[in-house]
Amino acid sequence: MSSTQHAYAYLSRVAEPPNPAVARLVAEVGAVEAAAAIRRRVAPPGHQEALDATETTYEIDLAVQDLATVEACGGRLVTPEDAEWPAWTLHALNTASTSARGGAPLALWVRGPARLDELTERSIALVGSRAASSYGSHVTSTLAGELGQSGWAVVSGGAYGIDACAHRAALAMGASTVAVLACGIDRDYPVAHARLLAQIAGTGAVISEYPPGISAAKHRFLTRNRLVAALSRAVVVVEAGRRSGAANTAAWARRIGVPLGAVPGPITSAVSVGCHQMISEGQACLVADSAAAQRLAAPDGLTLFDSVDTAATRASTDDGTPSSGTGAHDDPVLTCLPGRGGVSVSDVANSAGLPVADVRARLALLEVAGSVVRGPDGWRRARTGG
Amino acid sequence: MSSTQHAYAYLSRVAEPPNPAVARLVAEVGAVEAAAAIRRRVAPPGHQEALDATETTYEIDLAVQDLATVEACGGRLVTPEDAEWPAWTLHALNTASTSARGGAPLALWVRGPARLDELTERSIALVGSRAASSYGSHVTSTLAGELGQSGWAVVSGGAYGIDACAHRAALAMGASTVAVLACGIDRDYPVAHARLLAQIAGTGAVISEYPPGISAAKHRFLTRNRLVAALSRAVVVVEAGRRSGAANTAAWARRIGVPLGAVPGPITSAVSVGCHQMISEGQACLVADSAAAQRLAAPDGLTLFDSVDTAATRASTDDGTPSSGTGAHDDPVLTCLPGRGGVSVSDVANSAGLPVADVRARLALLEVAGSVVRGPDGWRRARTGG
Repeated sequence: MSSTQHAYAYLSRVAEPPNPAVARLVAEVGAVEAAAAIRRRVAPPGHQEALDATETTYEIDLAVQDLATVEACGGRLVTPEDAEWPAWTLHALNTASTSARGGAPLALWVRGPARLDELTERSIALVGSRAASSYGSHVTSTLAGELGQSGWAVVSGGAYGIDACAHRAALAMGASTVAVLACGIDRDYPVAHARLLAQIAGTGAVISEYPPGISAAKHRFLTRNRLVAALSRAVVVVEAGRRSGAANTAAWARRIGVPLGAVPGPITSAVSVGCHQMISEGQACLVADSAAAQRLAAPDGLTLFDSVDTAATRASTDDGTPSSGTGAHDDPVLTCLPGRGGVSVSDVANSAGLPVADVRARLALLEVAGSVVRGPDGWRRARTGG
Repeated sequence: MSSTQHAYAYLSRVAEPPNPAVARLVAEVGAVEAAAAIRRRVAPPGHQEALDATETTYEIDLAVQDLATVEACGGRLVTPEDAEWPAWTLHALNTASTSARGGAPLALWVRGPARLDELTERSIALVGSRAASSYGSHVTSTLAGELGQSGWAVVSGGAYGIDACAHRAALAMGASTVAVLACGIDRDYPVAHARLLAQIAGTGAVISEYPPGISAAKHRFLTRNRLVAALSRAVVVVEAGRRSGAANTAAWARRIGVPLGAVPGPITSAVSVGCHQMISEGQACLVADSAAAQRLAAPDGLTLFDSVDTAATRASTDDGTPSSGTGAHDDPVLTCLPGRGGVSVSDVANSAGLPVADVRARLALLEVAGSVVRGPDGWRRARTGG
């Protein structure tokens, strides 16, 4: 066990994640230093809040034990230091407008053999009502099965209803599926899904930002929902009542720019009301089949890996480093960005006529080059960029 | 029987409507002169086409007989000379882009007590598959019943399936309903709907542009569909397969700027495929209840009569004549119009934040004032308007 792993495991429990103060401290000094500062009660200037947040908990260090617990159930702690850390996909959670409500997770507890970065590059979330109708269950099974067959990982929340149908259909197809939990990955919640969760962990991943032993709780479902959205290339709501947890996941998807779809159903069905509302208010695209869900997630029909590679190649100089400076001005993504305000990745993709994956990759390179910034309203050109 | 009525009745049969050549001749010289010219085989310059179109038929004058036939079944011929002629609503059919495929009807054969202008000011078309599912039938009955209860006339095509459900539910609510036929109003098509059509004619209207005795035929369904759209303030497709007659009515609605809605259904239902396609392609708004259908037809929640009056008042000078000249420049509708190309009434309504009915009324006044013109692509500012 590395000191980094130990530090992340300690930080994961010392303040309930997501904790913006602890996250800011880690971003500034790294996990090892942050853990040391919290333990020693000496924070760098401007980081008193991280000490306040850990006032009553800093002496509790279960890092060794937690790491052993998850290892015992076939799990591990994945941190930003690991090659499999899905950095880009979680990056969207760190905009000013979203970080206050829960930025990127510090680290993720994971049960299952799949690499997080590979899994989340080709993933679609299917979410919906716990009180699924037989129509909803049927549709979820069909969609999840077809997506699995096409090589997509199906992400959901492990709950009753739509979630369980989605996981089960993906498993039946031999496809990867990801359950993001609102409790520790060693807990089976709901208890009746113990076997299902074990099956998911057998080929895909059971993921949580909560350390082992933590129980599911209402506020944790809401923060968990942001991870379901952030770890997926598209979110599709299959059934949702007027006020539902799925609507919360949908709101997260919109907030962080993950394409959102909703499946229509009979207008006489109470669990389709939320879907119809999202579609008619222009928040979600109508998804009538798995092909539509895939178009949402990868508008160009390419896998993300393909297109990221291509984009990186195109936007790099000959020696492989990202291009910057004046050359970047011709970048089709850059020309689609406003100088003030901001736009979403999908808006840029529409304007530039490029796949979302390409736009993401280019934005990452342009950000490194200092040509673009991400503000509270989305992406815009950097004032000093040229 | 006036000579005008006689002329229209003659013209209605002498060339199968809609006949653009005959319509142009009537527009130029009036119905009486047009009928005389065709009978005498002497057309004004540029109108040879109207003679060609009537080459083999000009001697057939069944006007007296046709008028007697419809009178015998409680009908009448409504012409542009009549106060009840729904001039505005049919005007949309006379744009350059649509008139070639069937402009405004020359006249309408009508069975039923309702005044056409009043009926069509508060009308919503419910159309859909003949092979309606039980879901589609149920939804149509609910929507039509609720719309009828709210004072809307329900327009449809008198066919099996969705059409019949719509008419029947409106009748059951004691509301007006309008059947636009692809045959003469003295013909019961389909035969099984003889009683239904008689009931419709008892309180609402059975309408056709074809003279009595004309049978339904495939091409007549398509031209009939344009009247269903033009006589309605909104068209709502309840169920439609991938290729359906309802899709044709929907296309007419979009072409002439009538708001289009579609009801979603199970994605497993073949007769909802067309609806889902229209919604996901942005052609139709999702309609999940009768309130949504009413918002489509009257976005401000006012009746068209109310808002037309208001708009006319606002846009008039003190002596009641429409304002024109420089004052019109401040008109919110005018400022939303492009100088080139053209936009639809609903686009203007969206841009100006005004109800469609207001925009229509203002456009009519601005057109009279010479400030706006209707081109092949929609409305734009007149080049010489100021």
